[in-house]
Amino acid sequence: MPDDVTSMPDDVTFRLARRDDVPAIVEMLADDPLGARREGDPGDPRYLAAFERIDADPYDELIVAERGGKVVGTMQLTYLAGLSRLGAERCQIEAVRVHASTRGQGIGRRMITWAVDRARERGCAMVQLTSDKSRTDAHRFYGSLGFAGSHEGFKLTLS
Amino acid sequence: MPDDVTSMPDDVTFRLARRDDVPAIVEMLADDPLGARREGDPGDPRYLAAFERIDADPYDELIVAERGGKVVGTMQLTYLAGLSRLGAERCQIEAVRVHASTRGQGIGRRMITWAVDRARERGCAMVQLTSDKSRTDAHRFYGSLGFAGSHEGFKLTLS
Repeated sequence: MPDDVTSMPDDVTFRLARRDDVPAIVEMLADDPLGARREGDPGDPRYLAAFERIDADPYDELIVAERGGKVVGTMQLTYLAGLSRLGAERCQIEAVRVHASTRGQGIGRRMITWAVDRARERGCAMVQLTSDKSRTDAHRFYGSLGFAGSHEGFKLTLS
Repeated sequence: MPDDVTSMPDDVTFRLARRDDVPAIVEMLADDPLGARREGDPGDPRYLAAFERIDADPYDELIVAERGGKVVGTMQLTYLAGLSRLGAERCQIEAVRVHASTRGQGIGRRMITWAVDRARERGCAMVQLTSDKSRTDAHRFYGSLGFAGSHEGFKLTLS
C-alpha cells in the first residue's frame, strides 16, 4: 500500500463497497505478506456476513477506490464514539490495501488523504490506525502524511 | 491503571455504565497525566451525548468496575466488524482507568482479564488496544497479560 510517490493521481474516485465487490476486496487483503497467511476462499460466506454488518452500520464504511472503472484499493473507516476528549468522535482506518497492479503510483496517498478529509468534514477530532511493526515503509508513509507514531499497538489473538 | 500486582481482587464486579455514572467516568478520564489536558466539565452535555450513542449501539459497551458499591474503574469495549481474517470480529479496548484511590491493588488486571474473557465468549478473534508510548508501565502490564506489542499506533489530531 505505501509508496514514496508524493504526487497523487487525480483520476481516482471513491465509493462505498457493494456486496459484489467483496471477492475483489478479499483478494487484495490476501495479496500481502501478512494477509496471505490469514485469509481464505473469497467466496466464504463469513466474508459476506461481515460485509452485511458493516453495510448496515451507520458508523462503519467499507470503501473502494476506483480508477478507469477498476477497483484499485480498499480501506475501512469506522467512526468511534467515546467519552474522552469531550465526547469526541474518532475515525479509525483499518484494512488498507492498494491492488498489486497499481502500487507505487500514489494511490495509497490519495486514499488516506481522502479519508482524513472525510473525517474532518464529519467533525472527527482524530484519525487513528495501527500498522504492523514489520511494515516500516508504511510507517514512513503515515509520518509523511502528518500522523504521529505516538502509541504502542497491542494485540491478543484469541483464535 | 496498570500495576505490578499479579494477584487479583475477587470482589470486583462489572456492569454497563448508566447515564448517572458519566460524571464519575469523566473524572477518572481526567485524573491522569495525559487525560488532564484534554477533558472538561464532567457535566458538559457532550459527554452525555457520547454516552447515549454508546448505550444505543449493540457493538459498543461502556463498562464500570465496582467494589463495595463504589465505581473503581472504567473501560470501553467496542466490537469491530471487518472482512480481514475470514470476517472476524475484534474487541477493541479504549479509555481504561482505575480510580486513583484504588490503584496498585490488581483492579486493572482484573478488568482486562474480564474484558478478554468477555471477548472470547462472544467469539472475537482478537483483542486490541493502543497505549501512549510514554506509558511504559502499562506496556509491561499488557505484556504480562499475553498481549503482543506488535504494532505502531498512529494518530492524526484534527481538532
